[in-house]
Amino acid sequence: MITIQRALISVSDKTGLVPLAQTLHEFGCEIISTGGTGKVLQDNGIPITEIQSVTGNPEAFGGRMKTISFVIESALLFDREKDQAEARTLNIQPIDMVVCNLYPFKNVLESGADLETLIENIDIGGPTMVRAAAKNFKYVAVVTDTADYDRIIAELQANQGALSLETRRRLMRKAFNHTADYDAMIATAMDALDGEQSLRLAFIGGKTLRYGENSHQTAMYYREKEAGANSLYDMNVQHGKELSFNNILDIYGAIESVRRLKDSGCAVIKHTNPCGLCEGTEGVDQRTIFEAAWAGDPVSAFGSIIAFNRPVERNTVEFLALDAEDKSQRKFVEVLIAPKFSAESLEYLQLHKNLRVIEYDTSSAMCPKDLRYLNGSLLVQDSDTELYSKLEPVTDIKADVERLHGLLEFGLKAISSIKSNSIILAREKEGLYQLLGMGAGQPNRLISTKLAIEKSRETLSHEYTGDPDQLEAYIKEEIGKAILVSDAFFPFPDNVELAASQGVKIISQPGGSLRDDLVLAACNRLGVAMIFTGLRHFKH
Amino acid sequence: MITIQRALISVSDKTGLVPLAQTLHEFGCEIISTGGTGKVLQDNGIPITEIQSVTGNPEAFGGRMKTISFVIESALLFDREKDQAEARTLNIQPIDMVVCNLYPFKNVLESGADLETLIENIDIGGPTMVRAAAKNFKYVAVVTDTADYDRIIAELQANQGALSLETRRRLMRKAFNHTADYDAMIATAMDALDGEQSLRLAFIGGKTLRYGENSHQTAMYYREKEAGANSLYDMNVQHGKELSFNNILDIYGAIESVRRLKDSGCAVIKHTNPCGLCEGTEGVDQRTIFEAAWAGDPVSAFGSIIAFNRPVERNTVEFLALDAEDKSQRKFVEVLIAPKFSAESLEYLQLHKNLRVIEYDTSSAMCPKDLRYLNGSLLVQDSDTELYSKLEPVTDIKADVERLHGLLEFGLKAISSIKSNSIILAREKEGLYQLLGMGAGQPNRLISTKLAIEKSRETLSHEYTGDPDQLEAYIKEEIGKAILVSDAFFPFPDNVELAASQGVKIISQPGGSLRDDLVLAACNRLGVAMIFTGLRHFKH
Repeated sequence: MITIQRALISVSDKTGLVPLAQTLHEFGCEIISTGGTGKVLQDNGIPITEIQSVTGNPEAFGGRMKTISFVIESALLFDREKDQAEARTLNIQPIDMVVCNLYPFKNVLESGADLETLIENIDIGGPTMVRAAAKNFKYVAVVTDTADYDRIIAELQANQGALSLETRRRLMRKAFNHTADYDAMIATAMDALDGEQSLRLAFIGGKTLRYGENSHQTAMYYREKEAGANSLYDMNVQHGKELSFNNILDIYGAIESVRRLKDSGCAVIKHTNPCGLCEGTEGVDQRTIFEAAWAGDPVSAFGSIIAFNRPVERNTVEFLALDAEDKSQRKFVEVLIAPKFSAESLEYLQLHKNLRVIEYDTSSAMCPKDLRYLNGSLLVQDSDTELYSKLEPVTDIKADVERLHGLLEFGLKAISSIKSNSIILAREKEGLYQLLGMGAGQPNRLISTKLAIEKSRETLSHEYTGDPDQLEAYIKEEIGKAILVSDAFFPFPDNVELAASQGVKIISQPGGSLRDDLVLAACNRLGVAMIFTGLRHFKH
Repeated sequence: MITIQRALISVSDKTGLVPLAQTLHEFGCEIISTGGTGKVLQDNGIPITEIQSVTGNPEAFGGRMKTISFVIESALLFDREKDQAEARTLNIQPIDMVVCNLYPFKNVLESGADLETLIENIDIGGPTMVRAAAKNFKYVAVVTDTADYDRIIAELQANQGALSLETRRRLMRKAFNHTADYDAMIATAMDALDGEQSLRLAFIGGKTLRYGENSHQTAMYYREKEAGANSLYDMNVQHGKELSFNNILDIYGAIESVRRLKDSGCAVIKHTNPCGLCEGTEGVDQRTIFEAAWAGDPVSAFGSIIAFNRPVERNTVEFLALDAEDKSQRKFVEVLIAPKFSAESLEYLQLHKNLRVIEYDTSSAMCPKDLRYLNGSLLVQDSDTELYSKLEPVTDIKADVERLHGLLEFGLKAISSIKSNSIILAREKEGLYQLLGMGAGQPNRLISTKLAIEKSRETLSHEYTGDPDQLEAYIKEEIGKAILVSDAFFPFPDNVELAASQGVKIISQPGGSLRDDLVLAACNRLGVAMIFTGLRHFKH
């Protein structure tokens, strides 16, 4: 423990300053202070020693020189054991604490200030004393964050004005992180002013995962330091086994898949793609939505990751039949995500020991940026948030874009969540928008179309309970009411020909191919209504 | 221009010190210096002013205090216009240049030093004078990198001992980047010592791309500051249109696909997956390898990205038939990558104005780490570099692992490059290892198997020139000689059953499913030889 007998306080942000200084004062600590800070303290009846009387120097050059001096930095830096005699000879008296926050470069930067103003707001004396105090944390405490004041006050009060080594060490780490962030901001801003684009990212709270994408790869998971409240890292694990690397990847995919659905929705994720997705218009209960999402690919849904964008009640998750006596009826999934799980739903889900249950506010904003690290380089783009630039019927048969509007939006949200080349079929039925089938990640779009149609046929066969002889007619009828959505344009008419042969009547695609005329001619020949959306949705 | 009349030199790394100081001296510059630096200069006949005589303070506390003082920082910081009178009153004489490199914290860190040693190597005075000089770059030059000395010397010599504002501004940016890097390193190291894992990444040289993954997304491309010589950013664009976001993603996929091939290889990439891949054993010419890779999916190969791991000659790329009179014979690809293109090959490729031609050393080491940014969080893993932990024949029919060794390695390299769930068929024929067909990115492994077999059948049909009645027999025979490789284990025997029904005789998979016994029983029943590799290769 070090009793704080002498503190140097020089802060730009005066929040919480008085109670902290008051506490120090009550324990007999001498407070050395600079101009503005000193004035606030004196106005509040706290006696101070003016820094000039310690340094022997005036505040000079428009405030550029306040604290930097042989006396102050020596008082912070000297080794209280080895250097004691030398300090006495040089008449250096120790300073045991620095309280300092730096000139608000960030605010000035965000205000769009010019170079001269920015430069004037680069703090030199602050980082010097912060870094000096941090280096000598064995004897000195350095406080750089107003959010720490309460804790410091409590510790001072509990220890007659002293702080522990543990606290000083924690504060030291915070201090170096603070000066690192500060200079990162300055460096990036100065580069940008000269047209040099640089980027500095800081990540904290690294957790070691059991392993990476595969068991022979080690892995860590970090929080982005400057991330807002919707950082994926902050998801709240309510139950279940430790999250794996692949869980986290899939959870991200799951959240992105339901985040943009306006009404209550559910996504079933496998290998980051939604293989089931459903949105219910108002009045449809969540259980029904869950069942319809699951029905999109009930085989792949086993071992999947499921996300909801509305609070979950027990009735919804009872669909998993975790307590079914016949174990083969139990639906095993890896992870469930929702903004909130009711106590009853959580209790039910806990029947499965390993099932991870996660609360995350899926209504929070989409991440504005998308980063891809590629061997010593980084691609940064803003996220794909727009759905379409137009909804233009372009064929002889005009799609009723107004009537289809909800379904089109659903389909475009779905396709934006699926790896390219992607094709989906989606329908509206009984108040539900449902993904009937999807084809993902194919080098050849035609295969994606084939996959999406095959999957849709399976989904429809599975739900059909009527006369087997009428099954094919049913499938064709349902496919005829659905829309086929393509993430990118069709380079040739072959996709249209395949889709039409399987009963597809409405197709949405960005348009813009050199051969749009051939594609449209095929649509007109085959009685297909096509809509151009103007926006591609590649995702890799 | 500012003439450097007074310079403060205090460097840890003495490289290049003498010629720089000599130049300054020749132009009549006074050199203020600290202990070690001063000694080197004096030994080389360059007169110095000892820092103590300027500061009026001794070097103190085991070297912790050398330069920090009211005099030095004032001399660096005061405004040469506004503050001139004040400086005169305070007897502060300007210092026009700081040459400083910081204590080598990085070296000490990498040597595995303990906390005390690390702390002792945190430079306080250095960053203070560097930052002070940088802040006042309007009048002061700050040199922090020995690599800049030659350029500085040349500029001093060209300008009678003066440096331009442009140079000082560039040096200022470098200085703030240097202190940002320095404190980032300290912060991360101090965190790590306390078990707090933090990570700071710096990226430079940001280039604005035309757009992101889609035209409504803006995008930038950066170099990782600390990346080694194999940064993807440093690829050398020899010809063609500006690279797009998707090009860069695919180029990465292409390089990773050929990087690990031992012999001459070629990858054909679409949407980041290799849809064609081939490796030739010695003596096989590159053109043949290219043709065999292309044959893996000649439809998808149009508009693809192609990578070679050997220098490319004209004969190889003539396969693209860019000069064919019949335009439909010309093979359009987006990008070609190789360690080197001969002048003749480049001349040929320039026939196509838009085709991007890129030189990159594909033999350089794989990137050790793999980062995934997920909405305010970051997954970091080491790359998937191992292929297998064993090659164990596990069925009644024992695969001849020794004979198959080369093909197995090729197949495992291929599967490691393809998005999960992935299944491939690969064969060895006439000195070539060739990807016959692949199924990628499917939620249900059975669909990947189906896709891989269908594609392989197409490939084989396409190459077959014999009696049409014998085609099916040919396909079965070739598939029987190929291996089917799965990126992960089979949860059920259905994949084996499907594969066997199509003629597959050899399957490689990690093993480790709860139902391995059922899978092996199916193999034994159906005459399939299975090999367990022990390692999964998920990739998302």
